[in-house]
Amino acid sequence: MTDDEAAIRRVVETWMAASRKGDLETVLGLMTDDVVFMVPGKAPFGKEAFAAASKGMGETRIDGDSDIVELNVLGDWAYIRNRIDMTVTPPGGEPVRRSGYTLTLLRKEGDGRWRLARDANLLAG
Amino acid sequence: MTDDEAAIRRVVETWMAASRKGDLETVLGLMTDDVVFMVPGKAPFGKEAFAAASKGMGETRIDGDSDIVELNVLGDWAYIRNRIDMTVTPPGGEPVRRSGYTLTLLRKEGDGRWRLARDANLLAG
Repeated sequence: MTDDEAAIRRVVETWMAASRKGDLETVLGLMTDDVVFMVPGKAPFGKEAFAAASKGMGETRIDGDSDIVELNVLGDWAYIRNRIDMTVTPPGGEPVRRSGYTLTLLRKEGDGRWRLARDANLLAG
Repeated sequence: MTDDEAAIRRVVETWMAASRKGDLETVLGLMTDDVVFMVPGKAPFGKEAFAAASKGMGETRIDGDSDIVELNVLGDWAYIRNRIDMTVTPPGGEPVRRSGYTLTLLRKEGDGRWRLARDANLLAG
């Protein structure tokens, strides 16, 4: 495994761990400022909308596992295909399970760190 | 616009035009042999499954427009974000409209031609 591959895997692990802890600041630090998130049936959205939606979720608990099924470094860009199984539990509500794949592009920025830049999220209930 | 950008736009235009005509052979020629298609709620699938599903659609009419909202060439790979509006009309059935975005990776192969290699399709009804 190259250094870049290892660094990209750490980004995904850190993202998942920070999501579990509700550590939004860490998650935001793992995406580029121009990140674009794409989900079915909605307009693409960026970092600010991601932050607002996360804050709006309040005490919602997110738990999940991810398994990188493909990782390909293309210079200062890379893509991964990630298989994700997650459970979202709103406060006082029933857990909702969602699973499926993402196609995610990461970019190595000027500080040498890889960050999520484009993300297509195909998880379904 | 660079030659690569123009070539990638032609791939998308040719794909849409061939889909409208039901010209499966042309569409298959625009994807790499290891292509992976991802849609919500299904396992990823490849070229053979794409061909089988297309054949299974019989006389279904597909019409649509696409608008490339982002195109970024990364050496021998490129990604596009495509806004697609399509109408699928099964024989004797009602037209179904689907719209939304794709995140698509293309690869420039040994013959100098760009082909679809990874496609996340987020279209919804």
